[in-house]
Amino acid sequence: MDAAGTKDIRRKRSGGRAGNAGRRGTAIIDQMPWRIPVNNDAPTEPLRPEGVLRIHDTAMRILEEIGIEFLNEEAVAILKSAGCTVNGTNVRMGRDFVMEMVSRAPSQFTITPRNPDRTIPIGGKHILFGNVSSPPNYWDMEIGRKVPGTREMCQNLLKLTQYFNCIHFAGGYPVEPCDIHASVRHLDVLFDKLTLTDKATHAYSLGKERVEDVMEMVRIAGGLTHEEFEATPRMYTNINSTSPLKHDQPMMDGWMRLARRGQGLIVTPFTLAGAMAPVTMAGAVAQSIAEALCAVALAQWIRPGVACAIGTFTSNVDMKSGAPAFGTPEYMRATQMTGQLARFYGLPMRSSGVCAANVPDGQAMWETEHSLWAAMQSGTNMVYHAAGWLEGGLIASPEKFIMDCEVIQQLQRYMEPEICDTSDDALAFDAIKEVGPSGHFFGIQHTQDRYTTSFYQPFLSDWKNFEAWEAAGAVWTPERAHHLFKLIVNDFEPPAMNAGIRDELADFVARRKSEGGAPTDF
Amino acid sequence: MDAAGTKDIRRKRSGGRAGNAGRRGTAIIDQMPWRIPVNNDAPTEPLRPEGVLRIHDTAMRILEEIGIEFLNEEAVAILKSAGCTVNGTNVRMGRDFVMEMVSRAPSQFTITPRNPDRTIPIGGKHILFGNVSSPPNYWDMEIGRKVPGTREMCQNLLKLTQYFNCIHFAGGYPVEPCDIHASVRHLDVLFDKLTLTDKATHAYSLGKERVEDVMEMVRIAGGLTHEEFEATPRMYTNINSTSPLKHDQPMMDGWMRLARRGQGLIVTPFTLAGAMAPVTMAGAVAQSIAEALCAVALAQWIRPGVACAIGTFTSNVDMKSGAPAFGTPEYMRATQMTGQLARFYGLPMRSSGVCAANVPDGQAMWETEHSLWAAMQSGTNMVYHAAGWLEGGLIASPEKFIMDCEVIQQLQRYMEPEICDTSDDALAFDAIKEVGPSGHFFGIQHTQDRYTTSFYQPFLSDWKNFEAWEAAGAVWTPERAHHLFKLIVNDFEPPAMNAGIRDELADFVARRKSEGGAPTDF
Repeated sequence: MDAAGTKDIRRKRSGGRAGNAGRRGTAIIDQMPWRIPVNNDAPTEPLRPEGVLRIHDTAMRILEEIGIEFLNEEAVAILKSAGCTVNGTNVRMGRDFVMEMVSRAPSQFTITPRNPDRTIPIGGKHILFGNVSSPPNYWDMEIGRKVPGTREMCQNLLKLTQYFNCIHFAGGYPVEPCDIHASVRHLDVLFDKLTLTDKATHAYSLGKERVEDVMEMVRIAGGLTHEEFEATPRMYTNINSTSPLKHDQPMMDGWMRLARRGQGLIVTPFTLAGAMAPVTMAGAVAQSIAEALCAVALAQWIRPGVACAIGTFTSNVDMKSGAPAFGTPEYMRATQMTGQLARFYGLPMRSSGVCAANVPDGQAMWETEHSLWAAMQSGTNMVYHAAGWLEGGLIASPEKFIMDCEVIQQLQRYMEPEICDTSDDALAFDAIKEVGPSGHFFGIQHTQDRYTTSFYQPFLSDWKNFEAWEAAGAVWTPERAHHLFKLIVNDFEPPAMNAGIRDELADFVARRKSEGGAPTDF
Repeated sequence: MDAAGTKDIRRKRSGGRAGNAGRRGTAIIDQMPWRIPVNNDAPTEPLRPEGVLRIHDTAMRILEEIGIEFLNEEAVAILKSAGCTVNGTNVRMGRDFVMEMVSRAPSQFTITPRNPDRTIPIGGKHILFGNVSSPPNYWDMEIGRKVPGTREMCQNLLKLTQYFNCIHFAGGYPVEPCDIHASVRHLDVLFDKLTLTDKATHAYSLGKERVEDVMEMVRIAGGLTHEEFEATPRMYTNINSTSPLKHDQPMMDGWMRLARRGQGLIVTPFTLAGAMAPVTMAGAVAQSIAEALCAVALAQWIRPGVACAIGTFTSNVDMKSGAPAFGTPEYMRATQMTGQLARFYGLPMRSSGVCAANVPDGQAMWETEHSLWAAMQSGTNMVYHAAGWLEGGLIASPEKFIMDCEVIQQLQRYMEPEICDTSDDALAFDAIKEVGPSGHFFGIQHTQDRYTTSFYQPFLSDWKNFEAWEAAGAVWTPERAHHLFKLIVNDFEPPAMNAGIRDELADFVARRKSEGGAPTDF
């Protein structure tokens, strides 16, 4: 496909970038460098200001008049001491209290992983992308069917998480390694995560032992004192309410533990309209906001100013089957509405890259595109599950991961303000005059000076014409992605880690395993 | 996959809608009704006001200082009489003249096809979608390779154009029927188009005979007098400049013929940055605007107030191969910038649904999604090629057509303001209170009253879980689309047409064929 004489351009590009990335040999793909994207587009705001106030008012009435169940005695006691109305596990809180607590939360914070160059700012106009988290199952082109996740699969997906510069944080387990016993799974996966990646990581709030173990491992990996660990967020947790209107015991426990130690806190109600929330999207969003804000209030009461973000996972069910649907028109609007509320409260926001499709085909990409554009349009700051998600989060797929990274790179390029530069240089009047009506722009100096950097260069999209594509094997997108997956994983080199720290982590894992790990009876 | 007891809901939905559509028997799919979507989202505006002015100024300088080649003697003579500076085929025009002419153009107009219920408003906040136009080749899952288009393929794609309510207008030929001689191709395809569809149609500006024949056939099909035909646009043409900076003989000829008879006029420069336009997007947009506005000026001089729209086809080349790329980040921003300029001039705008992918896979959908979202974000009024386009417009595919219609339906649902209703009813406080923390929303009255209409219901997306999807044959999206294609085409019933009109059309075609059709030597 290459025209003669253009090959040296490619070599120059690859060489330059590979050099910058400090990799030996030839880079497998010519990817974009790590960057923190800034989303300067005005958010899409389907609600008028009074609509925002009406959803806010409904959320407040839910908290005041209906209340939330906190299935955690400690949380109930704390909220009682804060002046909330407690009736068994039901907690009602007034809007003045909620808004005062919310006002304590910072509008922006950072998470600093073991490699400080990978520090991520959460809030403002930043939008960051993370890997798929928590599918129990795995699918790839080679296996060709849905299988339970294993540690090796999880490691491979962590390698992709590290490899791709467009992925900013390592969320939960990119697939559940079902071949590791649940009591020690967190130890092995966190060891893998902290050694295979150097990006910001997460603890599942699934019981105090897991949470404490993960905090300790992140501290060790960063070579931090306890004081340094607590000085600024080094990691985060994401909790889900048990909609409707409940926060459960282990989630609240982890939430409070991380709050006390000043780590990042994200609360994401999973309010599926028509099932766990009203069939009307404004009602589902209002319920989601109520469920999220009461957790933020608890955290801010415990530790004023602790880093909090609210997440949205408001989608709809398929009313024919009850199955959850993702990337739907209703999902997009709910995400945008939640963005308006997040700005109203001055809180950072998380949303997701999601689809209902079972395989990485056209449907998978249009649903994922809808969810990613909803993230862009809503002013989302953290995009969970942005790479690798299939079947409503029940399957992780490396091909989908790589396809998603191609899209995420394009979104990141889309956010570069240079594309819309209107300097004299970019307006190119002289170049237009030079070429006139009979020439073309390939050869002129204005083009020559800029052509290696003017346009986004994909690593997965195939821009060959049909005949050249056919001659190259007529390979459809998922197969191309699979091929890259194999190359990347086989060639993977873990990020540098001090040998002493690595040993200390391994020792910690061994000790905690010998102690039995975490109980699995919650 | 259906839960027991939900089947009657489907029957009710299908029955109701099928009844409305006036179809006998069972509908093949349960599609959305015909509607004229209103895009109320604020457009995405990457340029500040001064950026808009700088692109405008550059476009004006191109027209004033460099000029455009009009390879049409009549156009040159008319522009000379209008006071433009003519030097051979080079025409320069001052900004005052251009802006005065542009101000004559209406900001909105309608096109009324033979079925007045299919009248489309072009401009304002309306966004309308049309079928793919003009690929020379065809691909479907059954053939499995790229083949030249035939009349039968063209007819089948016209049937899809008519069948899908989300397709508002029939653009150019959805595939070139290469088995019909070029001299009479327009007669056969227009006969097919006017009998198989009742939607707004288009004439290629490829010589006076074709243009005059098509206008006459549209007039006959509408049962119109010549006076009625000219009273308001009944059809339109879309011309492309020959970038850089040229308008060719047949395009200008058709443009002026339609202008004189008061039909719709769209001018779409194909300014591929780095090839036929500057490598910098602002320069490519400025050149595109200059090429478009001079054609608008000509039309408004000939017939003040005639319906004009400007199109954008500014994308970039792959700098490795020179191949055109579509749906890129640069394409998206160029479309948005052009939207800002179109609003500055008060002209309706056309953009496209495009991709570079060769087959209807994931890449095809992410590229198409990017172009469709660029259309949404730019305030585009007409989306050409919105369904069925592959390989940079060189291939038409029925599977891609149907996949695109699924996406377009979702965009149309996305634009329904009801999703973001914040009435008391939608906020659903009472429903949330009724369900409380322990129940679910499936069974309550608030849900029961709304669940058949609350959420978008796809016809092609498969929301089954993996196991159910596998049990149903593990069918990927393009195969599902192919299956629907066959069903739709086999079951197709053409829209009603008066037998006398049909005979008159057939007679016209026969007569013009006996006269030799159109010359093919241009």
